[in-house]
Amino acid sequence: MTAPVRILGLDPGLRRTGWGLVTIEGSRLAYVASGVVLSSDKAALADRLRELHDGIAEVLRTGMPDEVAVEETFVNTNAQSTLKLGHARGVALLVPALAGLPVAEYAANLVKKSVVGAGHADKRQIQAMIRILLPKADPASDDAADALAVAITHAHHRRARALGA
Amino acid sequence: MTAPVRILGLDPGLRRTGWGLVTIEGSRLAYVASGVVLSSDKAALADRLRELHDGIAEVLRTGMPDEVAVEETFVNTNAQSTLKLGHARGVALLVPALAGLPVAEYAANLVKKSVVGAGHADKRQIQAMIRILLPKADPASDDAADALAVAITHAHHRRARALGA
Repeated sequence: MTAPVRILGLDPGLRRTGWGLVTIEGSRLAYVASGVVLSSDKAALADRLRELHDGIAEVLRTGMPDEVAVEETFVNTNAQSTLKLGHARGVALLVPALAGLPVAEYAANLVKKSVVGAGHADKRQIQAMIRILLPKADPASDDAADALAVAITHAHHRRARALGA
Repeated sequence: MTAPVRILGLDPGLRRTGWGLVTIEGSRLAYVASGVVLSSDKAALADRLRELHDGIAEVLRTGMPDEVAVEETFVNTNAQSTLKLGHARGVALLVPALAGLPVAEYAANLVKKSVVGAGHADKRQIQAMIRILLPKADPASDDAADALAVAITHAHHRRARALGA
């Protein structure tokens, strides 16, 4: 028997960073909570990053995950948007690392493949599969659903790694 | 008369983040210190960002700046490099914001224009002007010289803003 492991998934964005918390015990997945950390458009960039930091730190404090998984978000063709996304992603990776938690990264295609079975799934398909895999989940937004999908991906892959060892 | 203000300039990069500390008292600039915070190539991304965080936090603790200025670094045409730079820049903006310090941003062209007088100056010209503007400075690297250039740019612009007010 294995003890339940709490996994936090993060889908980083400067304006909206989705988060989703699940537990896995053996092969049993369960929903815990999900939501979105926001930063205000009108604030200076450094202050927006502090808002993200504080929001993610609060999720860690209340959610007490054992492991964290972050989506390798789609790289935009626009360099300025890519740079902005990088800022948010840097904070999403940093905050759990500062808390001493292991942080895994998963490519967006792998997340879609793990959850829907196809690397080109759309947002609607992800939401639908989340409701099947986690019946108690009712993610209020695409960002929260994507974050739950990253958490599920990590739940599958950490198990595969353990079996392979 | 104005009290001396300590300004920290940061030139962010995932592998090397340059830093340079100056004081300005009225129109008198003076060099304090400069250096580079490194992250190890072989570590995981989240751990590298924690190394940058810890290094910059240490510079803030020992250098005790009043204000921080961060370069809006050149946006690469390669999306992956841009995303990596964004991660480092996010940390460089976040750490002083967490310490409650005001954080200003300056475009690379404006920095070159402020220090050398031309927006297309090369690394050698910046190093040479740093040695003229800050005779006691002997920046060991281009990154440290660039960080001092950002600090000088902020020293000029904060004064201009104050005079205009």
